[in-house]
Amino acid sequence: MKWCRYTANDSTSYGIIEGDTVHEVSGDPIRQAQGEHARTGATHSLGAVQLEVPVIPPTFYAAGINYPEHVTWAAHMRGQEPDLPKKADVGYRANNALVPHGHDIVVPADATEQLQYEGELVVVIGKECGPTSTGPVSETNALDYVFGYTIGNDVSERTWQRGDRTMWRAKNTDTFKPMGPWIVTGLNPDDLHVIIRVNDRVVGEYDVATALFGVRHYISEMSKYLTLVPGDVLWMGTEGATENMVDGDLCEIEISDIGTLSNRVNWLK
Amino acid sequence: MKWCRYTANDSTSYGIIEGDTVHEVSGDPIRQAQGEHARTGATHSLGAVQLEVPVIPPTFYAAGINYPEHVTWAAHMRGQEPDLPKKADVGYRANNALVPHGHDIVVPADATEQLQYEGELVVVIGKECGPTSTGPVSETNALDYVFGYTIGNDVSERTWQRGDRTMWRAKNTDTFKPMGPWIVTGLNPDDLHVIIRVNDRVVGEYDVATALFGVRHYISEMSKYLTLVPGDVLWMGTEGATENMVDGDLCEIEISDIGTLSNRVNWLK
Repeated sequence: MKWCRYTANDSTSYGIIEGDTVHEVSGDPIRQAQGEHARTGATHSLGAVQLEVPVIPPTFYAAGINYPEHVTWAAHMRGQEPDLPKKADVGYRANNALVPHGHDIVVPADATEQLQYEGELVVVIGKECGPTSTGPVSETNALDYVFGYTIGNDVSERTWQRGDRTMWRAKNTDTFKPMGPWIVTGLNPDDLHVIIRVNDRVVGEYDVATALFGVRHYISEMSKYLTLVPGDVLWMGTEGATENMVDGDLCEIEISDIGTLSNRVNWLK
Repeated sequence: MKWCRYTANDSTSYGIIEGDTVHEVSGDPIRQAQGEHARTGATHSLGAVQLEVPVIPPTFYAAGINYPEHVTWAAHMRGQEPDLPKKADVGYRANNALVPHGHDIVVPADATEQLQYEGELVVVIGKECGPTSTGPVSETNALDYVFGYTIGNDVSERTWQRGDRTMWRAKNTDTFKPMGPWIVTGLNPDDLHVIIRVNDRVVGEYDVATALFGVRHYISEMSKYLTLVPGDVLWMGTEGATENMVDGDLCEIEISDIGTLSNRVNWLK
């Protein structure tokens, strides 16, 4: 099933996408039990609605460095030997930076030329798990707590990423976290394939399953210490080298069985 | 004015505290314009309500290392020379870890003995500012965007903090972020004094104004790159050395003109 969050006639709702039609639903499909939302009967053409960020997470998790070639490339860029993470330590991103499919990536005038994409699978949590509810969940059961999957572009200004003490502006400047266009349920993350394009040129491609630590492992490890709640998102990291983008570039992240997240770079003068 | 968020009769509301009385208000005083909330007429005795975390932030910012003696102490603990931050780089904490005044700090059985408090001033944003709304705000005007101030305990497991790649479980294990007991408006952060006690023994004490970078500077710098929205919180960091806590310890953070945040350590076996 394909869920979107959208605005039409000045009102924002969740909807089910079937073909080119959006069927409006009442309620919040992610945070409510499955029975509690229903189609209102209203429909829209998909092309006529404004797609919104598909969920605003209570906590915004990001696996960070989680693919071997990306870790190796990033280390060489810093003149260091690669040091593959030995554990699934999760990081954070910030809600201020989220923008939907189709929204510009707006780059501050003082950013350096090292503005880069990172195409990532995004896991959307659908059911609470953690120390005081379920206890730690096993890898076997971990996907039971997933609502569905969407796509993220972890836009990064590498000079700030290396030079600042934290990644606050390198990765969390407003508009640096495009997410969408919608959420697809019922997928096996191990089957998914990511293709990254800049202006129609393929600049990266990988299988989600080549991650150092997979979705099941992250959820299982996290649930030992923290409570995941419906709507939380976990960005799974990217693979491979990444390249600079310039003003006007269109960056597209395509994930098989989900769709394509497209955002254009708008560099402030 | 002193604002709390509380539960009474199975319902959670904001309230104004006057003496020992909580006056219930309708609406959300932080996210709505000042005129849009009003006293409902209902009152409670402060001692009879369950205080809740005073605000659930859209984004949870933390200044991190922001006081000179704490930086020096932490570096020596790691066997390194202190390296004072040269810029106001902001970090993040996570909403799953928030608990109110009076709630236990629940420590996982596999934590090491290095479980420590950090008593901090917390700034609560009251008015949107940032690149696309106000543009960057000056230090002179920065406090116009503050709703009020509360207290945080940035509980930290130092072994995990040093050993993990990120601070996800060191600082964001469930219950590791006590915040409260309430929010006080109209304060000058430079006047505030922090006293930290464990079981009535003073273990730390400092003036908020001795921070490397103050509240005005942080808000001004952040607003160049990101949009702060009502309800966002910014934890300002702690000063001095910190000590281990053990099962049963009561940790109290007192800030002049705000109050005292008290939480007991409950170490799981």
